[in-house]
Amino acid sequence: MSSDREQAAFEAGIKLGALYHQWVGTPISRATAASVETAIEQAVGLQPYVEEIHVTLDREMMTANPFGYSELAGAMFSVEITTQVGTARCVADLRFTGEYPLMSIRSIDETA
Amino acid sequence: MSSDREQAAFEAGIKLGALYHQWVGTPISRATAASVETAIEQAVGLQPYVEEIHVTLDREMMTANPFGYSELAGAMFSVEITTQVGTARCVADLRFTGEYPLMSIRSIDETA
Amino acid sequence: MSSDREQAAFEAGIKLGALYHQWVGTPISRATAASVETAIEQAVGLQPYVEEIHVTLDREMMTANPFGYSELAGAMFSVEITTQVGTARCVADLRFTGEYPLMSIRSIDETA
Amino acid sequence: MSSDREQAAFEAGIKLGALYHQWVGTPISRATAASVETAIEQAVGLQPYVEEIHVTLDREMMTANPFGYSELAGAMFSVEITTQVGTARCVADLRFTGEYPLMSIRSIDETA
Repeated sequence: MSSDREQAAFEAGIKLGALYHQWVGTPISRATAASVETAIEQAVGLQPYVEEIHVTLDREMMTANPFGYSELAGAMFSVEITTQVGTARCVADLRFTGEYPLMSIRSIDETA
Repeated sequence: MSSDREQAAFEAGIKLGALYHQWVGTPISRATAASVETAIEQAVGLQPYVEEIHVTLDREMMTANPFGYSELAGAMFSVEITTQVGTARCVADLRFTGEYPLMSIRSIDETA
Repeated sequence: MSSDREQAAFEAGIKLGALYHQWVGTPISRATAASVETAIEQAVGLQPYVEEIHVTLDREMMTANPFGYSELAGAMFSVEITTQVGTARCVADLRFTGEYPLMSIRSIDETA
Repeated sequence: MSSDREQAAFEAGIKLGALYHQWVGTPISRATAASVETAIEQAVGLQPYVEEIHVTLDREMMTANPFGYSELAGAMFSVEITTQVGTARCVADLRFTGEYPLMSIRSIDETA
């Protein structure tokens, strides 16, 4: 079987994979980025085992195309999520390494 | 070639098809629906030839799954969009017929 | 009201907008591109008023990330679609201009 | 830090969350379901740490809308994925419980 720690890691992975593929491709600009951040945080916050979620989208990368806007790309995401299963808490993130939008486990702890 | 009226209709179609497939599947609830409506309106409003966009998501259909939330389905969308190309203005909508989330042209007019 | 020509243009727009936002972000490589082209063509071919659809994804742009694959980007699409409403037939396409994945009406004709 | 077992679980979660939100909403029918299954398997197979992936989409649920096709819904997915990180191997799945498209860890093992 799997432990609470493993399940907390699994749940964190689900949410990061899900949000990436749900929102990539959204039309976006520096003026509208906050509305997308809020929508992502609220949507992910509904899902099971999510304790906290913070989403920041890199406005520097939102350069205007010929029609004056940009498109949400994987490289723009900076996300930190905390999941909890039983007494295990997993903090994981999605950050652009400069080459790849990498999803990683930051820590897994047992809450007393 | 194609007229301004035809191009306005084409642009309205693009935006309705795009928003449907971008956002279907998003985790949603009655408490978070407004944030998704805002994010969709702001995103579509960035795209070329869009004059107006109103999005209403049917909260009655947002019944809770075993984890307490719902998922944005095509049937929940009620969208009206206005596009303008040259002097032609197209109003189109996306509405659930009871069987199908139908996209239709409501009117095309020439502005003076 | 709107003419068959305008409706054919509207339907072509719907399909191009839809396919773009449905598939952008898909993991892809030169080895798997054909399976994605087939899946898109078959999916769009199911939708109303579609007569023909051809999808080519630019393999040259599919450079490997550090994990050896790529992600379907708007710039990779080359799509030509034919819709028919009544006697009106619209040919439209999605092509990368070098700066923007542009959707355009190529022609609208009346079939006798 | 996190163990190989935890990381294998995390990676399995990423892939299940990703594929669900990438493909939900795709136009589909019994005649085209195989092309979507293949495209999903090939796409997920490109991603890091994936050893095996099997996707079956429930054709019984693909009832025709008024235009003769259906739309890929979460309830249609039956997916089993195997990820490997170091010597840890995680088998996880996505199955419809009758009420919810549930993602679960089936097993985590150490390969010798």
